[in-house]
Amino acid sequence: MPFEVVKRIAGAEARLGRLVTGHGVVETPAFVAVATRGMVRALSAEDLENLGVQILIANTYHLFLRPGAETVAALGGLHGFTGFRGPWMTDSGGFQVFSLGAAKIHGVGKIAPIFPGEARPRDTPGVPLVKLTEDGAWIRSIFDGTKYFFSPEEVIRVERLLGADIILPLDECTSPFHDESYTKAAMERTHRWAERALLAFERTHGLGPNPHQELWGIIQGGAYEELRRTSAKTIASMGFPGFAIGGSLGKSKEDMYRVIDWTLSELPADKPRHLLGIGTLEDIVEAVKRGVDLFDCAAPTRLARNGALLTLSPPNFKLNIDNASFRNDKRPVDETCDCPTCRRYSRAFLHHLLRTGELSYFRLATVHNVRFMVRFMAWIREELSQGRLPRLEKEVP
Amino acid sequence: MPFEVVKRIAGAEARLGRLVTGHGVVETPAFVAVATRGMVRALSAEDLENLGVQILIANTYHLFLRPGAETVAALGGLHGFTGFRGPWMTDSGGFQVFSLGAAKIHGVGKIAPIFPGEARPRDTPGVPLVKLTEDGAWIRSIFDGTKYFFSPEEVIRVERLLGADIILPLDECTSPFHDESYTKAAMERTHRWAERALLAFERTHGLGPNPHQELWGIIQGGAYEELRRTSAKTIASMGFPGFAIGGSLGKSKEDMYRVIDWTLSELPADKPRHLLGIGTLEDIVEAVKRGVDLFDCAAPTRLARNGALLTLSPPNFKLNIDNASFRNDKRPVDETCDCPTCRRYSRAFLHHLLRTGELSYFRLATVHNVRFMVRFMAWIREELSQGRLPRLEKEVP
Repeated sequence: MPFEVVKRIAGAEARLGRLVTGHGVVETPAFVAVATRGMVRALSAEDLENLGVQILIANTYHLFLRPGAETVAALGGLHGFTGFRGPWMTDSGGFQVFSLGAAKIHGVGKIAPIFPGEARPRDTPGVPLVKLTEDGAWIRSIFDGTKYFFSPEEVIRVERLLGADIILPLDECTSPFHDESYTKAAMERTHRWAERALLAFERTHGLGPNPHQELWGIIQGGAYEELRRTSAKTIASMGFPGFAIGGSLGKSKEDMYRVIDWTLSELPADKPRHLLGIGTLEDIVEAVKRGVDLFDCAAPTRLARNGALLTLSPPNFKLNIDNASFRNDKRPVDETCDCPTCRRYSRAFLHHLLRTGELSYFRLATVHNVRFMVRFMAWIREELSQGRLPRLEKEVP
Repeated sequence: MPFEVVKRIAGAEARLGRLVTGHGVVETPAFVAVATRGMVRALSAEDLENLGVQILIANTYHLFLRPGAETVAALGGLHGFTGFRGPWMTDSGGFQVFSLGAAKIHGVGKIAPIFPGEARPRDTPGVPLVKLTEDGAWIRSIFDGTKYFFSPEEVIRVERLLGADIILPLDECTSPFHDESYTKAAMERTHRWAERALLAFERTHGLGPNPHQELWGIIQGGAYEELRRTSAKTIASMGFPGFAIGGSLGKSKEDMYRVIDWTLSELPADKPRHLLGIGTLEDIVEAVKRGVDLFDCAAPTRLARNGALLTLSPPNFKLNIDNASFRNDKRPVDETCDCPTCRRYSRAFLHHLLRTGELSYFRLATVHNVRFMVRFMAWIREELSQGRLPRLEKEVP
């Protein structure tokens, strides 16, 4: 039984679960730490183990370019190559087809507005590096401009070689500025690509370093109710053992919550659901209440590198360590945190390391934010295990 | 007894020693890891403990500018501020007076040629940021150009506040292109500054977080035999409990070895000797044979960041991990190394992290090179304890 719902909360969609992979069990709801090129930025495999990180997600497009899927396979797949031997996921590169393609034309940086107002067209739309066809996507290397063809079959072949425990099929993401007609066409193409990915997945059984991979389905349909419901039903009917919600989640948090509700209500209750690329503490709490089991998001680690250290203090839930007020502050980032950074270093020292551009800063800050997310998800699971829905204080007490 | 010679090697100057500080014992010969701004670049205090680093050296000029000596003192001095509670040294800023001053005029980047031919005038000498007077040095901030006055007394006050266990007085370094007359004048000024520093050190007893500081003397005199001997005798006569060899070591390794011989033959045999800013494996072996006890050098950590990982393989004693030949190399950097990087990661993974600019690379590489230096010094001590002089293989076997 690869996924088991351990407990449901009466009168709500939230649930506690256990996801069993060939490289260990993931207690859900869980945060999947982002390791785009095979390692969470600034950390090591030991760090991830010590911080209690359950599962990582790497990116197929980035690893395909460097060092190449064959190289990763020859070195034992992601588990052997990176030294992190717990569960891995790989995203399909579908998001890069979007972010280097339609996102550049529309001038949007993300699918969903992680912060209010973020999903608006940029002033100067860029030149797309992607050309989509029915068969797949021509995509240019971010390194040297070389063109590569990413078909659903090629992506599965690459993911077989990378050897993650949970892999995702090539999909076409849409932006919040795509109309319903284009979003529908992209969704239907995503469904055809999902069928092709399933066939390719069966055909490639035995290829690569990991014989126990699972291919999950990705649901598209933008923020259009009929499309989301159709996509969820269609993808669910294909027999995937798990699901990811991809693509545009609309233009506001309310849009996103509605998209989650529509989608999950059409999915089988006993299979795991992953919300791609989300999110903030508030988003995670709201999505957990609606029945999401897994999240990945680069924000916690990116915020750390930019000086924003996560805390449970509303309204911002972060402390900007670059602020001059921390120059002489002897306290740890968070008195209640058990991470190696908070147990040993003052805000003043972190402020100093950031201000002087010391490399040591990036790891110590990332250690804190990653441990914060691990503890935050453990707190959510504890609330659920006590029969309570997690509730985030939004007001400064 | 703050320093004890544990064993001498018959017929040679090399010795095993124990340096006792208020924050722990240093077994010598030892490598002092460079933590200019309070932390070895890319590492943490835990890393340094785990790697067996015995002692660190921070820089008075850099910490004076940021975060400021008063801030460091308020946070418990270097030991409390940085979290590394073992022995600390501070360099006086004398080298910065040189590197931002005369070194810019002469177009030299270092005092001594660490690699053959390195100490030559640059094509385009720079504009000095320093103005020297008998009373001290006006020196500009590398951050914003603000002018500060560094006198021997001010440097001692700052070092009292920083609280290192071993501190050094302000000196005037000369370049290999200074003539004997200028070098002599600079040396005599350094001697007058040393007297002033000793007085200031006595006057400031009780200032700052560390009541057990030692002030060591710095010997100058360039590569001129008479000057080096004079400087060693003069500084030794002032009663310092330890000595550092500073300034120009000439234009070749042979020059450097001669300078060490002249200097150490004039110093008391029972006091510790530190060779500032040196060096390579070969330099360390040669200097140990001549009676040097302590070394600091930024090269091992800087080399790591630039892709050069230290090994015992002649002739280069390093492996350039950026080289394409490592792309699929499953072996660790060094099969015989016990560092966390070699125990877990392949050359291929380190190559990948460096090639893709991942922050994780810098720490994993630095971990290896720092552990290498720790093990290298332990090997030297083991050789000495067996009554042998260390001998580096220079030829590829």
